[in-house]
Amino acid sequence: MSDVSGLPLIGAAAQRARAAARVLRTLPTDTKDAALRAMADALVERTDEVLAANAADVEAAAAAGTPAAILDRLRLDRSRVAGVADALRQLVALPDPVGDVVRGSTLANGLQLRQVRVPLGVVGIVYEARPNVTVDAAGLCLKSGNAALLRGSASAFGTNTALVAVLTEAAEKAGLPVGSIELLPADRASVGELLDARGVVDVVIPRGGASLIQRVVRESRVPVIETGEGNCHVYVDPSADPAMAEAVVLNAKTHRVSVCNSAETLLVHRDVPFLPRLLSALVDAGVTLHGDAGTIEEAARSGLSAAVVPATDEDWGTEYLSMDMAVRVVDDLPQALDHIEQWGTGHSEAIVADSASAIAAFTAGVDAAAVLVNASTRFTDGGEFGFGAEIGISTQKLHARGPLGLPELTSTTYVVTGSGHTRR
Amino acid sequence: MSDVSGLPLIGAAAQRARAAARVLRTLPTDTKDAALRAMADALVERTDEVLAANAADVEAAAAAGTPAAILDRLRLDRSRVAGVADALRQLVALPDPVGDVVRGSTLANGLQLRQVRVPLGVVGIVYEARPNVTVDAAGLCLKSGNAALLRGSASAFGTNTALVAVLTEAAEKAGLPVGSIELLPADRASVGELLDARGVVDVVIPRGGASLIQRVVRESRVPVIETGEGNCHVYVDPSADPAMAEAVVLNAKTHRVSVCNSAETLLVHRDVPFLPRLLSALVDAGVTLHGDAGTIEEAARSGLSAAVVPATDEDWGTEYLSMDMAVRVVDDLPQALDHIEQWGTGHSEAIVADSASAIAAFTAGVDAAAVLVNASTRFTDGGEFGFGAEIGISTQKLHARGPLGLPELTSTTYVVTGSGHTRR
Repeated sequence: MSDVSGLPLIGAAAQRARAAARVLRTLPTDTKDAALRAMADALVERTDEVLAANAADVEAAAAAGTPAAILDRLRLDRSRVAGVADALRQLVALPDPVGDVVRGSTLANGLQLRQVRVPLGVVGIVYEARPNVTVDAAGLCLKSGNAALLRGSASAFGTNTALVAVLTEAAEKAGLPVGSIELLPADRASVGELLDARGVVDVVIPRGGASLIQRVVRESRVPVIETGEGNCHVYVDPSADPAMAEAVVLNAKTHRVSVCNSAETLLVHRDVPFLPRLLSALVDAGVTLHGDAGTIEEAARSGLSAAVVPATDEDWGTEYLSMDMAVRVVDDLPQALDHIEQWGTGHSEAIVADSASAIAAFTAGVDAAAVLVNASTRFTDGGEFGFGAEIGISTQKLHARGPLGLPELTSTTYVVTGSGHTRR
Repeated sequence: MSDVSGLPLIGAAAQRARAAARVLRTLPTDTKDAALRAMADALVERTDEVLAANAADVEAAAAAGTPAAILDRLRLDRSRVAGVADALRQLVALPDPVGDVVRGSTLANGLQLRQVRVPLGVVGIVYEARPNVTVDAAGLCLKSGNAALLRGSASAFGTNTALVAVLTEAAEKAGLPVGSIELLPADRASVGELLDARGVVDVVIPRGGASLIQRVVRESRVPVIETGEGNCHVYVDPSADPAMAEAVVLNAKTHRVSVCNSAETLLVHRDVPFLPRLLSALVDAGVTLHGDAGTIEEAARSGLSAAVVPATDEDWGTEYLSMDMAVRVVDDLPQALDHIEQWGTGHSEAIVADSASAIAAFTAGVDAAAVLVNASTRFTDGGEFGFGAEIGISTQKLHARGPLGLPELTSTTYVVTGSGHTRR
């Protein structure tokens, strides 16, 4: 079933990964944990080697005129390497999902039915400049019994090569099979091959910006777990406590603006008496407001006109990832739900309200990975949810929605045990 | 997010379905069950209308030279209509997955986390001649809170139109929204539009033959749940009880040959002393055997040569769906696992053995939706598993693997409830 002809760039690596996956799926947790510990130790021991490769990547990128923000993502230092090593050690402490019995029963005819978690097999990860993803993704895949096919960016290729050399050597010494972690060439065409490798690669997970995710979703013949895009809203109901609304809105917008679970649009019911308070709090925090007519009117009455620019449809559809927020005054809760249905990306939607019926209507009416009631959108996060580790936040409805922990990197098999059972 | 421009054939129906899905997701079980009962009653009351439309379809298909087997699938009679009406009533008795709390906890900071089952939204079903799928699929989608976009075959279009008219009228009278069940035009291009309707349609499920499934999987930009193809194996270990092996192999091959969970290949360990017994039992049952060299040798020794034709690689890769079976003598269990890895479709794989270590190695080593131990492959079935209803058997690893019941037609949402929680 796994034909790698037609995959000149990634075929050999994919074949090694497939072979490794057959072994990985049978390994006990102890062996995988020992490998994760060995990988962490090796990263710390061989930090100099990794940093030397990284320095060369950063130098080349700087010479090529790469913007400072991207250089910063690319750059490793001793403490960042220690951080990723630590993350590997934290994976050891997490329960192994493989072998979990999801459901089990004995059927009327005596057949014993067990639905058991098994690894997905070969997981492809496509990601951008951050080399820490190399280590994170490899660790998450291995703990869940999967082989990792890593396709990082060309700018980080030297760093990723050094990291994978360190990880692979340690993993193999600890008993993991050759092919457990494979770094793919950073050629442009290697992404295309990965997305075309149906039957060889079991799933592809893109980690990066919107354009990368869109390309993967559009082109892939391999099943994809879509992560990331978050055009998140906070709706403030007339029943909301003003101080709570202010705190939640401020936190959702300003706690960290560059992440997918930050809020981009504020929807305020027209009967909310404290909109000026919300607007000034945001302005005071340095947020640029993009308001609809109702918001601008309200701002004018409160002497805040200078702080609000008019919003267009583009504002409702934009994931700013910056100190900007769109603000709309809605007639009622259904209009807020319509707005979210039209413009939301199904990531995280929050309501601030004290009315149980408003909360119930919002919770039932919003179609998203997470609905937050009187809490900041920033809580949609594997760490915050107590999953311990996360490979991304899924905004698709199939397979897994919301933060992706270790169980989300598995599939299941039904094991049916009889004593010579035949069907009548 | 749901742009239907570029969908001239299905856009209007898809838009009605999207609007319906927003209402369906909020309906209590009672309302959905009342609609299912009303739909069943209406089908029985208006059977004549449905049969008249069906007779016209059958006549037209016969005039066009359609083979008898396909005419039979297309043809409805009073008892088939009663049967699908009954299936709708059986759905009423099944638990509604929507609203199930999959997991829940209170986090250290007091946030209450609940992962709740919600409908997928708009489910597209692409299927072939059998008009009973129209009713089954509509019922399964509605019970799980989804709107159904049905794309049946052109040959059954009159029948499907009559069925959907009956179902829709009954459903709307019982309180379901317009758009809950939409029949798409049977034009060739409507499948293409459905597969392209990302953001409008949440998932597409193909029900039919291999070529339909392959087309959907290859072309779809909408997430797909892949069903059906089953190249299933039975492996007989030297530790197997001969009578049990014979019974399981015969049942797996001959109980019903045209279905995906029937066995196509028999793998026998070379130390099994009773291979001739298995071969004669299959031959006596009317099975044509396609054997490897080892099988042909064994058959010659037992005077069964005439019954075995030589197997080629094509045999290992074929889902016969007929009274044919490929037979291979393997050196050991790992070789059986290699064979299954190379040729299997990940549907159902069986072992007959009394050795616990052989059973453990087979169960761990096979990567399939179902592994059957001392039981026929024919047991991989939603009804047999006790799921009560099934929309197909998934052979993919994402989302759902194995028989697809009502819970597999849902996604989940995390509902996070705080009291003004903000992130530090």
